[in-house]
Amino acid sequence: MENLIKQIAFIREIDKLKYILRKTRLINSDRHENDAEHSWHLAMMTIVLAKHSNEPIDVLKVLKMVLIHDIVEIDSGDIFLYDTSKNHTNTAEELKTAERIFGLLPPEQTEELITIWKEFELGQTAEAKFAKTMDRLEPLLQNTSNNGGTWAEFNVNYQTVYGKKKIMAQGSVKIWEFVEGILNESVQKGILKK
Amino acid sequence: MENLIKQIAFIREIDKLKYILRKTRLINSDRHENDAEHSWHLAMMTIVLAKHSNEPIDVLKVLKMVLIHDIVEIDSGDIFLYDTSKNHTNTAEELKTAERIFGLLPPEQTEELITIWKEFELGQTAEAKFAKTMDRLEPLLQNTSNNGGTWAEFNVNYQTVYGKKKIMAQGSVKIWEFVEGILNESVQKGILKK
Repeated sequence: MENLIKQIAFIREIDKLKYILRKTRLINSDRHENDAEHSWHLAMMTIVLAKHSNEPIDVLKVLKMVLIHDIVEIDSGDIFLYDTSKNHTNTAEELKTAERIFGLLPPEQTEELITIWKEFELGQTAEAKFAKTMDRLEPLLQNTSNNGGTWAEFNVNYQTVYGKKKIMAQGSVKIWEFVEGILNESVQKGILKK
Repeated sequence: MENLIKQIAFIREIDKLKYILRKTRLINSDRHENDAEHSWHLAMMTIVLAKHSNEPIDVLKVLKMVLIHDIVEIDSGDIFLYDTSKNHTNTAEELKTAERIFGLLPPEQTEELITIWKEFELGQTAEAKFAKTMDRLEPLLQNTSNNGGTWAEFNVNYQTVYGKKKIMAQGSVKIWEFVEGILNESVQKGILKK
């Protein structure tokens, strides 16, 4: 019962992820997406796209990664991919938040989830590479549906987008080839500037 | 590549789940929850509570269940648990939506997800029982944080709540005992009427 009480405290706390707004907007919409919706969408993408991974992956582990990957933003807020003033790696601030929030759980679960979160952040394993591919793919689909979305809004050009997205090939060459097609199409349509 | 194009069409379509509002409101909030956030929260609950299941469960399958369980509401809208005028089982309308939306995927994935969705709706397997326990638990935590929430708003009394929630014991006797405590406490606090 002691474990259950801790787990319920964690479940209540992470409700706050529903208020953390991302820069990107929903498909064909001007409504900003929040981190909980985003995490759900990445989980669904993992379920349907897992077979395109370059390497065999443990789908359950990837699901845990994408479901928890943004929980640290409850304290630190969303970090925009094209924000050059902020560090995108596992910062001391994020680690502190991870310890605070995952620390609400029984110790063995705290350790499991912090380990998985760090693995995602490091991006070295097959699971982390695929999870990061999902994380890069979703806003791209949103931006193309919204006349360039954040690319247009924040004046991000093709070269910058390409530079940030090409890491997707590490998770799935097949998905990356598809994305290259989308980027070229976006340039032709004039919604992404070269 | 043909499969990937179908999968991307599905991924775009299910973005609509983010607009389907539930009757319940977020923890300590007057903001209604949407189905995508709700599904994410159930997935997180599954990850941390799985060990309280009465029977051993395939966690990956439960995650798939809770992540997809409300997708049919994209066409039919949210059905409120205490709405006595509507059928809560797998209706013909819901099946049509399931076939339309999951039907965007390559055939073997369409079949897999419709099968999992039907299994959830029937609630007979260990995985479906546990998934339904998660689905019943989340709004209860929200209502107790909001002075009774939908119980107060729609005049639902203790007996009705108890009747709708006791099925949770099929998924986890331990979680159900915890919930019985919460319901009794809610009566004592006057936020749930006997």
